[in-house]
Amino acid sequence: MPHDDFPPASVWLVGAGPGDPELLTRKAARLIATADVIYYDALVGPAVLELAAAGAECISVGKRSGRHSKDQASIDALIVAAALAGQRVVRLKGGDPAIFGRTAEEVAACRAAGVAVRICPGITAASAAVAAAGTALTLRGQARRLTFVTAHARAGEPLDLDWAGLATEGATLAVYMGRAAAATVAQQLVAAGRSADTPVTVVVNASLPGERIIRGRLSSLAFLVETIGERDPTMLLVGEAVRAPAGGATHRAVAAVQA
Amino acid sequence: MPHDDFPPASVWLVGAGPGDPELLTRKAARLIATADVIYYDALVGPAVLELAAAGAECISVGKRSGRHSKDQASIDALIVAAALAGQRVVRLKGGDPAIFGRTAEEVAACRAAGVAVRICPGITAASAAVAAAGTALTLRGQARRLTFVTAHARAGEPLDLDWAGLATEGATLAVYMGRAAAATVAQQLVAAGRSADTPVTVVVNASLPGERIIRGRLSSLAFLVETIGERDPTMLLVGEAVRAPAGGATHRAVAAVQA
Repeated sequence: MPHDDFPPASVWLVGAGPGDPELLTRKAARLIATADVIYYDALVGPAVLELAAAGAECISVGKRSGRHSKDQASIDALIVAAALAGQRVVRLKGGDPAIFGRTAEEVAACRAAGVAVRICPGITAASAAVAAAGTALTLRGQARRLTFVTAHARAGEPLDLDWAGLATEGATLAVYMGRAAAATVAQQLVAAGRSADTPVTVVVNASLPGERIIRGRLSSLAFLVETIGERDPTMLLVGEAVRAPAGGATHRAVAAVQA
Repeated sequence: MPHDDFPPASVWLVGAGPGDPELLTRKAARLIATADVIYYDALVGPAVLELAAAGAECISVGKRSGRHSKDQASIDALIVAAALAGQRVVRLKGGDPAIFGRTAEEVAACRAAGVAVRICPGITAASAAVAAAGTALTLRGQARRLTFVTAHARAGEPLDLDWAGLATEGATLAVYMGRAAAATVAQQLVAAGRSADTPVTVVVNASLPGERIIRGRLSSLAFLVETIGERDPTMLLVGEAVRAPAGGATHRAVAAVQA
């Protein structure tokens, strides 16, 4: 099928998914292979960039790139300038651009400059994490509400959650970048009435070679994250839906810790 | 790269994404092409099934298949029986198996029978819907909490939401299968203190040829869904993050309705 959705002088914001290049969408793979220039986040795996065309420029704008990180305004300016110079621009973001991806800023910058911009969704880290763990985020008739928050708030701000609502039995909570917030999450949820026995699953480096799945209870959450490195992307999953499936180990090594 | 993750007599629960076959992951496409038998939901698009191998059986178990729908226990039994007969089984689910996909039941059935089962995540409808609308589900510093609910509850049950928590400015709410619940969602959120001016976006048939994007305010939500067919998958998106981007129309026809 021919595609005419990526003309010169336009921008696609593309979700790179959790890291495994097989978890890119087919559309994302096509857009990456078509781009003249790709601006990518630190969390985008190197194997994803191997899909770029031979002559394409791949430029890291990520916060963990080793160089001084670019601020959002600089990234916006780079993308817009490349498109105005006539290039096919992919802005490649870890996970899904819709979820904690600062997509609104980049869309606004393109539109202000008259640059055509579109969005290709990606697999978000919570989906990849529970898939690896062999469970789901919702349970029919029991866990029908699912909330995503990021613990990477503005520096110094407390984690601003509706603890009472999340303490309801059956609610599932996924905390992105949650390592440092683990103790607070556990303490506040239990204080708001959630059972200390609520199942939790912590997934580190979801879908990547260093993936780890750590299971336990809300009461042990602070302990479960102790061996996780500061820079390892960490997803906290809390709720009845993420209970370990019955019937033995999953296909991956699972560290089970009971409180 | 060779793959040895789909031996005979095993099951993959695979997310088919929102319908556009380009929004399958590359992994899902590979698993579909490898399967001996595929049990698929009604919301899985026909173009997705075209990726199946020539000799593969594709069997609808969906609730809108025209025949009497199969109940969950029957689906569980079919999958398990096919795997025990030595087949490579794909259970193909619309969207992401982790989100409102009844995945726990199928995982449990496989494990109880000693059948190896794994999960391949998919693009969930909310991600596809906002990507099509050119916005995001979160906003840096303003909308850092995102809640997914399904309005397809057990028959007769009221929509069980934490209205007070969702009425907080900055919270984003995505209601799956939300057409019939639109009036209730608007009424309850406003009653709980959410501004009647809160932006809403309704996306029908996200990523499919019949896709429609309807924009408005919380006060007009009940009106916005009036022309949507009962069987059309409808996503309600509520919150500041889904405000229409400035700078003109998106690439698709957008019906803008202001209250």
